[in-house]
Amino acid sequence: MRIARFSIDGNVAFGAVEGDKPDELVLDIIKGIPFADFELSGTKVPLSKVRLLPPVLPNKVVAFGRNYAEHARELGNEVPEAPFAFFKPSTSVIGPGDEIAYPSFSSEVHHEAELAVVIGRMCREVPRERVQDVILGYTCANDVTARDVQRREKQWARAKGFDTSCPLGPWVETDLDLAAASDLTIQCTVNGQQRQLGRTSEMTHSIEDLIVNITEAMTLLPGDVVLTGTPAGVGPLNVGDEVAVTIEGIGTLTNKVIKRG
Amino acid sequence: MRIARFSIDGNVAFGAVEGDKPDELVLDIIKGIPFADFELSGTKVPLSKVRLLPPVLPNKVVAFGRNYAEHARELGNEVPEAPFAFFKPSTSVIGPGDEIAYPSFSSEVHHEAELAVVIGRMCREVPRERVQDVILGYTCANDVTARDVQRREKQWARAKGFDTSCPLGPWVETDLDLAAASDLTIQCTVNGQQRQLGRTSEMTHSIEDLIVNITEAMTLLPGDVVLTGTPAGVGPLNVGDEVAVTIEGIGTLTNKVIKRG
Repeated sequence: MRIARFSIDGNVAFGAVEGDKPDELVLDIIKGIPFADFELSGTKVPLSKVRLLPPVLPNKVVAFGRNYAEHARELGNEVPEAPFAFFKPSTSVIGPGDEIAYPSFSSEVHHEAELAVVIGRMCREVPRERVQDVILGYTCANDVTARDVQRREKQWARAKGFDTSCPLGPWVETDLDLAAASDLTIQCTVNGQQRQLGRTSEMTHSIEDLIVNITEAMTLLPGDVVLTGTPAGVGPLNVGDEVAVTIEGIGTLTNKVIKRG
Repeated sequence: MRIARFSIDGNVAFGAVEGDKPDELVLDIIKGIPFADFELSGTKVPLSKVRLLPPVLPNKVVAFGRNYAEHARELGNEVPEAPFAFFKPSTSVIGPGDEIAYPSFSSEVHHEAELAVVIGRMCREVPRERVQDVILGYTCANDVTARDVQRREKQWARAKGFDTSCPLGPWVETDLDLAAASDLTIQCTVNGQQRQLGRTSEMTHSIEDLIVNITEAMTLLPGDVVLTGTPAGVGPLNVGDEVAVTIEGIGTLTNKVIKRG
């Protein structure tokens, strides 16, 4: 099932996305929330009539660095032996169609297409064989990065945590199991031109590794998001660009870059 | 005013702390929340009858690294020319009297006593002359750090973000202005023995600098917390230790270290 979060006439709801043709998608409004038992209401609205929101409101976004070897190398970095994580704050999250505001303190903002794991239940110290149980589904993410600031500042709170630096969407696909999610094409285009192309099978540390690693240290909450690293091909975004992250079996997350107002 | 957050008989409330003698403090229960106009109810409960909670529930904790030169040097690090920030997640926050659970993945956990700035209103791109306006007050923090993990992992999400690694409290002191907050004694004891002693006037980058720096990049929300760095004298904590952070004019934050269950 594809679960979207949306607003219509001032109300916010979750809905199951139905249909195959992009122009004819319909949302079946969910009674309750997708982190517990829920029912489809049978009340349907065309996707074209709603505003899609970030599919979840994460308490925290945990992101892993340099998890695709070819990307680590393209920036002159070593491939880390163990995973390492950083945070993107909830204030950085935007939804599909929302605008990435080019920050005033950077002149080198990069796209980073990533598979995002959406956590379904509160969990800590998750053993490898239980990782599947704590995952609600998957969505697309763009780990937008002020590369010049990242080079200058030892920790990446500003470089990767500025407002609008975490587009998520368009919805959460819940029908992929771990094996399927670990072998998907991931792509990033800017103004229709391909920039990044990889497969999630190229991750140095698997989705299971990452969830085990982070929950060894901290509790994840329903709606928290784990970003799994970006494949090679990162590059600059400029004001006016339209950046799109497409992951096989999930969908496309599109955002336009504007000047910060 | 000293504003505490507490639970009594299953209810959570804010209260103004009244009295001078530690054993005779009383809470005047606040009607409303301290981030907007509020009144004191006149209903009073002895502090000894309640359980103090973290004085705020931050959406995010932004912490600055190596902001006291002598501390940077004691770990063999350079004093950074510009501030740099990292995050501690909301899941790491505990209150006064709560237990620090020694994490399984570290064998070198350190205390770091810090002055915590509590943000009072939503803000972004705060000019230096408006910093005072966005601050609700100040409390004590312990930026508990898995030092061995910090050395190993390039980004500090696990080293400084594990559950219980962010004790805050005992309350928010709102009567300090920026000048006063920038010249306070800050001290850390372990089992009654002094480990850290410094003054907030020794910060390399001032409170104003830090708030300007972080809000240049991101929105801060009411209840968000900014940690301002730790003075020299950091050192190990062991299971069974009682660690206390005392800041002049604010109070003492005490936590015991236990084995993670």
